[in-house]
Amino acid sequence: MGGAIVTSIQFLKPDPSILARRDDIVSSLRSVLPDEAVVSDPVQLRAFETDGFTAYRRLPLAVVLPSSTEEVAAVMEALARKKVPVVPRGAGTSLCGGAIPQEDAVIVSLTRMSRILEVDYPNRLARVEAGVTNLSISEAVSADGFFYAPDPSSQLACTIGGNIAMNSGGAHCLKYGVTTNNLLGVTMVLYDGTVIRLGEGELDPAGLDLLGLVCGSEGQLGLVTEAIVRLIAKPAGAQPVLFGFASSEKAGDCVADIIAAGIIPVAIEFMDKEAIAICEAFAKAGYPLDAEALLIVEVEGSDKEMADQLGRIVEIARRHDVQTIKESQSATEAALIWKGRKSAFGATGRVADYICMDGTVPLSQLAYVLKETGEIVKRYGLRAANVFHAGDGNMHPLILYDVNDPVKRQKAEDAGNDILRLCVDAGGCLTGEHGVGIEKRDLMTHQYNDTDLDQMKAVRAAFDPEWIFNPSKVFPLEGRGETDGGKASADPDTRPSPMEAAE
Amino acid sequence: MGGAIVTSIQFLKPDPSILARRDDIVSSLRSVLPDEAVVSDPVQLRAFETDGFTAYRRLPLAVVLPSSTEEVAAVMEALARKKVPVVPRGAGTSLCGGAIPQEDAVIVSLTRMSRILEVDYPNRLARVEAGVTNLSISEAVSADGFFYAPDPSSQLACTIGGNIAMNSGGAHCLKYGVTTNNLLGVTMVLYDGTVIRLGEGELDPAGLDLLGLVCGSEGQLGLVTEAIVRLIAKPAGAQPVLFGFASSEKAGDCVADIIAAGIIPVAIEFMDKEAIAICEAFAKAGYPLDAEALLIVEVEGSDKEMADQLGRIVEIARRHDVQTIKESQSATEAALIWKGRKSAFGATGRVADYICMDGTVPLSQLAYVLKETGEIVKRYGLRAANVFHAGDGNMHPLILYDVNDPVKRQKAEDAGNDILRLCVDAGGCLTGEHGVGIEKRDLMTHQYNDTDLDQMKAVRAAFDPEWIFNPSKVFPLEGRGETDGGKASADPDTRPSPMEAAE
Repeated sequence: MGGAIVTSIQFLKPDPSILARRDDIVSSLRSVLPDEAVVSDPVQLRAFETDGFTAYRRLPLAVVLPSSTEEVAAVMEALARKKVPVVPRGAGTSLCGGAIPQEDAVIVSLTRMSRILEVDYPNRLARVEAGVTNLSISEAVSADGFFYAPDPSSQLACTIGGNIAMNSGGAHCLKYGVTTNNLLGVTMVLYDGTVIRLGEGELDPAGLDLLGLVCGSEGQLGLVTEAIVRLIAKPAGAQPVLFGFASSEKAGDCVADIIAAGIIPVAIEFMDKEAIAICEAFAKAGYPLDAEALLIVEVEGSDKEMADQLGRIVEIARRHDVQTIKESQSATEAALIWKGRKSAFGATGRVADYICMDGTVPLSQLAYVLKETGEIVKRYGLRAANVFHAGDGNMHPLILYDVNDPVKRQKAEDAGNDILRLCVDAGGCLTGEHGVGIEKRDLMTHQYNDTDLDQMKAVRAAFDPEWIFNPSKVFPLEGRGETDGGKASADPDTRPSPMEAAE
Repeated sequence: MGGAIVTSIQFLKPDPSILARRDDIVSSLRSVLPDEAVVSDPVQLRAFETDGFTAYRRLPLAVVLPSSTEEVAAVMEALARKKVPVVPRGAGTSLCGGAIPQEDAVIVSLTRMSRILEVDYPNRLARVEAGVTNLSISEAVSADGFFYAPDPSSQLACTIGGNIAMNSGGAHCLKYGVTTNNLLGVTMVLYDGTVIRLGEGELDPAGLDLLGLVCGSEGQLGLVTEAIVRLIAKPAGAQPVLFGFASSEKAGDCVADIIAAGIIPVAIEFMDKEAIAICEAFAKAGYPLDAEALLIVEVEGSDKEMADQLGRIVEIARRHDVQTIKESQSATEAALIWKGRKSAFGATGRVADYICMDGTVPLSQLAYVLKETGEIVKRYGLRAANVFHAGDGNMHPLILYDVNDPVKRQKAEDAGNDILRLCVDAGGCLTGEHGVGIEKRDLMTHQYNDTDLDQMKAVRAAFDPEWIFNPSKVFPLEGRGETDGGKASADPDTRPSPMEAAE
């Protein structure tokens, strides 16, 4: 999307005392890591200045690329003593700015820690380093008939460490659950370099479930360096089927009725007309261009099982006046259907700049929220493409705008915020799988009251009393005190220039 | 089992300043609750002196039976101001002493809060009060073809609040997961009376996953008063099948191979010869009395699906020299098979006193741990019956002893501790579904190092800084400081008489 103009989101004011100690900090990093694992040259630092939320950029103070848990521990010990903030980073695919740097922080990138350490079928698990990509776990066990279930669209690039930070989902999570349902243990480095192991592969470890707490904590409790993940046997077969409808409301109601009937297909994905056109132009997947809304429903199992489940789904779809039903006739066709869906964000990026929302709503509210989303976007004079995990109620309106038009960009952000508030007001929440990051941080007060947020902050502080880890994310800057990372709180007079990083 | 002799487990020393204020505390409870909701008469208090871990007993200071979240909040506000410890209680079926009182604590019993508030099929959830029994949720939605999945053997009596406290499992959790996988939200009263709502029914709420943390926290973070739980559609059919083996090792290896093949039946339950005899005598379920070990494997789905899965399982069982295969031929037979299994603890109680262990081990270690368990029990001159959730690796050796023989009782406790240490050393953990409670508290140091425990305590203190909730449970008494509930720490000189409550 190229450079963008920083508008409404504030960053924490960098701590000048840390900036002044840059050389000292870098040399202390070099004292615990090999030379090539410490990046401090501004040109090289550019590679880390943003993540998938590319509208915002900051150059970090330095980047380290450790190769082991021991090296990560040594880095944290060195930095904690100097009270330097740390931003953990996987592949940098976060869509909510979860890995965006701050100028006074060191980025700890886990991409060199990408080994699969152990595959254990009797115990249905794999032990991996945090920098391994999501897809490479499934690839490593595919020949033996297994896979790792959560499948974010970015699975070719994104790391399991990033998935854990954001509790990532994916198209097939309707049946198999999100990351937290498939995570059995982590090794994590605390702010002072202490190494802690949570979970040993059991479903219910004794004592407090700190593992579940770490999953989705957006890199704020510690640095996850290794993970134990659940392996699942591949089904006998799987088949995506396309259902075209005359309106988004009919498609939305059909989804609610499928789930209300107790049917849980592997996936129910939704696309509106705009998304269908964009994805079909890219993938030539055979999507029905005349439909106002499309559902991709995937069934799996033996031929008989798939036919049985599909029969029940078709019956429900007919009650909602389905116009087109198209079963994939080959593995190639099936792959194309998924290629179109999984490339939706990339394909949209080819035709326009966009911001991607991630609100989740109760299924009973799906049709209503879809309609209201259309109204909101229209009110701002913008267009949106809707492509999302309908079975989970996890919506992804892509609001299209032109990055070179600052007025449109502001309107896109405002429309996005209105849509997220709509999701919360409909009984849903701000994020289904992308996380809060920096993008949705200031909307947290719409979802949670002070008691809720204070409780979360108290738990966060029980891991990281100095707010070393990723301090500018998740929690609103407003209302932060000395104890919760507010010592360098944003100040309109002193915050970084709003024109920074326009390039 | 009648009264028992308190032996090795220490209780926290009651705080004399609280005991001295008993009348004042009771009258402050009466000021916020209707008269009949406050129990302070010692005779009536007897009903609450223990739970499913009946060997230990303490009379609480008082019991309250609130009828609403507001009443619970008023109670907590009153007690927090007076710094009186609180023990939350559901049906009192805990097998690890999770609900056992302490003399200076008020029990908050949730059994009057047993309403099902809302059933919502499109969103696959039910909203219930915490005192509702596990089974009554399934009963309420059964006619519509749904059920609530976790099914502890005590499901007729145990409450959903207790299930949440212990992250309870059950025979069918192999496929459907334990409580944490089926819990979507709670309403919880904090120590000072503040009411907090966690989760709104989504899989991944924004911010820290405090809901996952609360599940399994054994009543130490707050008082859960309402819950939102996942509803699941009943399968087309279900069939339990009995597999008899010539040795426990063969049965254990068979389980590991079924799972390693990627097959996940709904349930794989294990019984050894001792358990088979006890359960068959009670239920007349048609268990093979000549088998050394029995697996109850339940398959579900359409007839074709069940036949397919069963075919693959039979093939694996034959590789382990299965001796008997018996399919249930009717719904009545199927019900009898489950009756035998679910009554195992009760049936055992008819023939002997027992303590029930709950260690969980990696499936690859199942056969080894079974063999070693037998050796340990033999070494102490005792007998054990093994009946457990084999598919999860969640073992339940019932160590048989005579409650009137203090030497045997001590040996049974020692053997139990050795078995739990064995589970941990084999890569497993202390508890699969029953929780730590008071029973396994002092073994926590075998599973966790100081860093692990300190981190858990810090998180606990972020909810309950004064250690008001259930303070004598989960964390070892040794090493407690001022900040973690140790102000009334156990002291060999001053702890309650070891002969207390022998009756």
